[in-house]
Amino acid sequence: MSSSFGTLFRISTFGESHCKGVGVIVDGVPPGLSLTEADIQPQLTRRRPGQSDLATPRDEADAVTILSGTENGKTLGTPVAMFVANKDQRPVDYGEMADIPRPSHADFTYLSKYGIKASSGGGRSSARETIGRVAGGALAEKWLREKYGIEMVAWVSAVGEVESSPIDITTVTRTDVDANLVRCPDPDSTERMTNAIAAARDDADSIGGVVSCVCRGIPPGWGEPVFDKMEALLGHAMLSIPATKGFEIGSGFAGTAMRGSQHNDPFHIRPDGSLGTATNNSGGLQGGISNGEPIYFRLAFKPPATIGRAQKTTNFAGSPVTLEAKGRHDPCVVPRAIPIVEAMAALVLADCALRQEARNASIAPAK
Amino acid sequence: MSSSFGTLFRISTFGESHCKGVGVIVDGVPPGLSLTEADIQPQLTRRRPGQSDLATPRDEADAVTILSGTENGKTLGTPVAMFVANKDQRPVDYGEMADIPRPSHADFTYLSKYGIKASSGGGRSSARETIGRVAGGALAEKWLREKYGIEMVAWVSAVGEVESSPIDITTVTRTDVDANLVRCPDPDSTERMTNAIAAARDDADSIGGVVSCVCRGIPPGWGEPVFDKMEALLGHAMLSIPATKGFEIGSGFAGTAMRGSQHNDPFHIRPDGSLGTATNNSGGLQGGISNGEPIYFRLAFKPPATIGRAQKTTNFAGSPVTLEAKGRHDPCVVPRAIPIVEAMAALVLADCALRQEARNASIAPAK
Amino acid sequence: MSSSFGTLFRISTFGESHCKGVGVIVDGVPPGLSLTEADIQPQLTRRRPGQSDLATPRDEADAVTILSGTENGKTLGTPVAMFVANKDQRPVDYGEMADIPRPSHADFTYLSKYGIKASSGGGRSSARETIGRVAGGALAEKWLREKYGIEMVAWVSAVGEVESSPIDITTVTRTDVDANLVRCPDPDSTERMTNAIAAARDDADSIGGVVSCVCRGIPPGWGEPVFDKMEALLGHAMLSIPATKGFEIGSGFAGTAMRGSQHNDPFHIRPDGSLGTATNNSGGLQGGISNGEPIYFRLAFKPPATIGRAQKTTNFAGSPVTLEAKGRHDPCVVPRAIPIVEAMAALVLADCALRQEARNASIAPAK
Amino acid sequence: MSSSFGTLFRISTFGESHCKGVGVIVDGVPPGLSLTEADIQPQLTRRRPGQSDLATPRDEADAVTILSGTENGKTLGTPVAMFVANKDQRPVDYGEMADIPRPSHADFTYLSKYGIKASSGGGRSSARETIGRVAGGALAEKWLREKYGIEMVAWVSAVGEVESSPIDITTVTRTDVDANLVRCPDPDSTERMTNAIAAARDDADSIGGVVSCVCRGIPPGWGEPVFDKMEALLGHAMLSIPATKGFEIGSGFAGTAMRGSQHNDPFHIRPDGSLGTATNNSGGLQGGISNGEPIYFRLAFKPPATIGRAQKTTNFAGSPVTLEAKGRHDPCVVPRAIPIVEAMAALVLADCALRQEARNASIAPAK
Repeated sequence: MSSSFGTLFRISTFGESHCKGVGVIVDGVPPGLSLTEADIQPQLTRRRPGQSDLATPRDEADAVTILSGTENGKTLGTPVAMFVANKDQRPVDYGEMADIPRPSHADFTYLSKYGIKASSGGGRSSARETIGRVAGGALAEKWLREKYGIEMVAWVSAVGEVESSPIDITTVTRTDVDANLVRCPDPDSTERMTNAIAAARDDADSIGGVVSCVCRGIPPGWGEPVFDKMEALLGHAMLSIPATKGFEIGSGFAGTAMRGSQHNDPFHIRPDGSLGTATNNSGGLQGGISNGEPIYFRLAFKPPATIGRAQKTTNFAGSPVTLEAKGRHDPCVVPRAIPIVEAMAALVLADCALRQEARNASIAPAK
Repeated sequence: MSSSFGTLFRISTFGESHCKGVGVIVDGVPPGLSLTEADIQPQLTRRRPGQSDLATPRDEADAVTILSGTENGKTLGTPVAMFVANKDQRPVDYGEMADIPRPSHADFTYLSKYGIKASSGGGRSSARETIGRVAGGALAEKWLREKYGIEMVAWVSAVGEVESSPIDITTVTRTDVDANLVRCPDPDSTERMTNAIAAARDDADSIGGVVSCVCRGIPPGWGEPVFDKMEALLGHAMLSIPATKGFEIGSGFAGTAMRGSQHNDPFHIRPDGSLGTATNNSGGLQGGISNGEPIYFRLAFKPPATIGRAQKTTNFAGSPVTLEAKGRHDPCVVPRAIPIVEAMAALVLADCALRQEARNASIAPAK
Repeated sequence: MSSSFGTLFRISTFGESHCKGVGVIVDGVPPGLSLTEADIQPQLTRRRPGQSDLATPRDEADAVTILSGTENGKTLGTPVAMFVANKDQRPVDYGEMADIPRPSHADFTYLSKYGIKASSGGGRSSARETIGRVAGGALAEKWLREKYGIEMVAWVSAVGEVESSPIDITTVTRTDVDANLVRCPDPDSTERMTNAIAAARDDADSIGGVVSCVCRGIPPGWGEPVFDKMEALLGHAMLSIPATKGFEIGSGFAGTAMRGSQHNDPFHIRPDGSLGTATNNSGGLQGGISNGEPIYFRLAFKPPATIGRAQKTTNFAGSPVTLEAKGRHDPCVVPRAIPIVEAMAALVLADCALRQEARNASIAPAK
Repeated sequence: MSSSFGTLFRISTFGESHCKGVGVIVDGVPPGLSLTEADIQPQLTRRRPGQSDLATPRDEADAVTILSGTENGKTLGTPVAMFVANKDQRPVDYGEMADIPRPSHADFTYLSKYGIKASSGGGRSSARETIGRVAGGALAEKWLREKYGIEMVAWVSAVGEVESSPIDITTVTRTDVDANLVRCPDPDSTERMTNAIAAARDDADSIGGVVSCVCRGIPPGWGEPVFDKMEALLGHAMLSIPATKGFEIGSGFAGTAMRGSQHNDPFHIRPDGSLGTATNNSGGLQGGISNGEPIYFRLAFKPPATIGRAQKTTNFAGSPVTLEAKGRHDPCVVPRAIPIVEAMAALVLADCALRQEARNASIAPAK
């Protein structure tokens, strides 16, 4: 089940860089939802490379086609399959790189696991794999927005050592995020972030970063203790994104230095009369279940492994070599990771929604 | 499936504090493994409260009974059920607390989710739920140790603002960890950590902390891209432990500030002739798959929500109240969390092992 | 996952005949349901051996204990664990039988699969394994009855060559079924069935039979195409019961001889104004989804493998032997299978109910 | 998960008749397997309509494309996606049929379940859905054949009231089966079967039938008690095929009339020295686990619901109408069902194989 994610709202993805294309089947789609390619394409377009000289310059249109599950622009409740063709499938001469496992890339581990690997090295570990996630997530997001008014917004909160000033999670929008190419809604940080990426690129090097995300409008009661607590599902989803090394929710690691009396979120009455919390160190979750406050989390991305700089390493046979990756590569993945993070959040939320709806219905008085 | 975890090696847990007891079914147990209660009890004993005045003083023996799945001290390959009785099931008078959702506890969210909650408040969100995990993990660990020579060691690396000096992940042992009650193997930090916990306790307050864990001896090839990458499964497992707020693997959040040329782990030849990496920022995983180096990660625990100090909050009806939790409570959970973290790591590894063994066998030449 | 069944309403069972006991965890239990042991015991009592000299005379009380998941007689939505102790766990001297795989029993295949088997031979393949199913099914059934008015009734429709006259599936009750020990509601057949069983017993032999079952009150829309069509889930559930060899729904094998014009169930208006079908060759399911008509099916049970008569066979080493099983054994399992069949039907229906409730809610207009 | 099947070897299918096409993702594919479209196409070609005037005359080439998961004709261990385009997606005028639920078809139940249905009526319940199964099954079968020497052969054993003479399950081949269009390897029955189908067709009616299947070469030990016994998985798989109404394994319903002394399969030594059974009433399975003998089963197909003959029924509003389905339809599905049955058998076996390989490896002495 390694290429499927979710229980009731479930995606199964396929595809790698050298094949005919990449795609996804979304199972458990709510029936009667308006859906065309125009609902999916925008997030794919935000994800695709070549949007600026900050990212890898390969131009791929990444136009999505819905293969099944809809008629007359409405979902039927049956599986929605979506496909994005690969533009260029010509076999590439990877030359000596075929014999050298790139440091911190998946070449060595894929070969260890499967006994075979794609000649391109990347295969299923390449960023292209995330297209199916983004397409599935866009579908999930549309349903969450229309049914519950839920919205999720991710942004770049750090590039290398450059950290954004605090962002107001109750108001930040995707428009704010997309106001600049580096996708940080803090205007005071964007130039320094851009410079940090450019400097890494100019050094034929790469740089890491942090993505933050907030999900607003989630009703209380979502998340499934004890093993499918929502933070556990979010952690699973986020840490399955390539190049991630850490996840924290609410107060995160910083919260460990606090006393309970500081960290606890006291209850108060919201203007609408419902019970909320005055602070939100919990990140919208208590006991693994949503409490109605915004859910927010941060995700660490390491610097991309493929760099042009010379690296001293060994080939598969163990002989010392110096590797200089050819071509041009993303010096920093976080700007393009934004729609991927939003997609994975949407997938977790849609699944939690359906699981809780089943429970809610199970309690309701008999028909 | 919220109380089950794993695909081939799978636990299902049950029980809460006010019921007859807590326990676990372990399915997918390798047959022919030597197994008696004596293999399980030590980790449960490390987990139980009352080990020192640092922890909650309730004394619970937590003696485990194997109900099924073995005969003559050997596993049969059938489900191993294990049970730990609750000592005291007398209904407790929670008085006014029944009307007040404890801040940052799961009272409010459990009621929101289920429309009912255990009168004790804790129910399935109490730490007692983790007994089933520890029992199941002890079984997994025994098999991993005997079959692959795998060992996993967790320790306290921070209490509040007190951080341990760096620990050598290649050599640290459980004996080192258990050398002091706070379970930090850095002797220079233990007194300050102990003092920090004592200070919180004396203030009728609580304090957070960080647990680190290393898993050694994992062969290359474990972990299931793309959604069940090992870091995703570990993140899922760890963030399902009560009170956790963050997870990072390898270089984690600190790695985001690095350049690729610093962060990449070059390959080298190990003394035994196999291919390893000279550094280990990857934390033993590349592309979600183990590379043969130690897997290590850190886990953030918030300060416990239940504190004796007065807190201004509201009751369920929204009226302002001042809450002072009665009784004595753990001022800091990290020392007792050690065997829980080890258990969840063992469960992830055992499942990944079986999944990869199936694949390895699928490649092998026909019999 | 071999000892778990279901997606949202899910049981995990454990236990075999020589261990401490047998039991079940039920996950996904609707919260707020009234539940005590008194709701579970009756079906266990119907299942237990020793009810008559038609069945195996071992007397086992099989009293169930609820270990978790309830408080004050109400379910909490958390896992309900239930346990039935084994009365006699003294090791038994199986003597030469330990060296002889009983023909058509699971001795040989368990050893082939696990490399080890319970000394008693039966282990997890013994009828005692079904106790967890019956306990879980009784819980499912209670919820289905209270929430939807659903009822399920199974009965013996054949013993050996003795077939019952047709039974009216729209009216048959458990009282009708339990009116005689053989559990056939056709009074004209019971004596001949009883005699057939007695004759087999007197010959130290065994005899097969057929169980029929009807489920009434299921709303239209349950069942999950394409792989979890309700007949597929029912077939899975029923054929997992020990000793079953066939399953047919609606017209079954007899329907294959019909023309479409005979077999099709035309629609008509029911007295209450809803759309029903005038006939029910479909067995209440079309395209794998319930249509509101009664769901009915038949299940074939082979004659029990353990018989006292001498059998020429071989031991594990392949040497010819003559085997005469000691002790007394059920000459016919179908009377005791009734509550097991009802339990598995209830488990399938409860799971389908929750899955469809999630879908129904997903369509509903936004809150 | 309704469109996914399997645990380790897992297919997820998509597509319906009016959309762009149909297909499948196969996850858990053994790496290093030689695989091109030429390995998949033959079974799809056996499945497609228009092979004779016995079947629906629509000509569809059903050419399959592998979208992912292979390189240079070898599987990579990553998901293999396969696609078959629909030739004609023009919207069809279903006229009055749109208002009338076809008797015993899924029109009414799909609308009840999803609140919406494909205008064509068939949607996901049409036979076209089975293409993904056949493609996935062909892949599974290739691996089973190459790794274990397993072969599976299905044939038509009854059409309406015409039953085949007994077929030797130890020798029957696909060549025998395909020797005639009706796909019955008993030459004495084929003419009468052909005539029965032709007679139904000439009456604008339809007719049911029975498919038998044998799987040879399965090693002892496959199948996962207690809920995933192999007969339970086979029953699940087979009863998920459209139009099926019954499944029986080994002696099946006929075995219920037997005494244990007749039905039991005594052990004997095979020529190769291994332990086998002298008879095979068990159908190759004991306790849900393969015993090394051929696994064989029978599957009942009802007469197709869509017929040209006038049927008195009602429309959705409940008003009486007479329905005469336009166009030409399969009068009997069993000849085309052969590769579908073989595919589902292969999928069950491949999954059981991987699950048992994981267990076998778990027992093996430590590396």
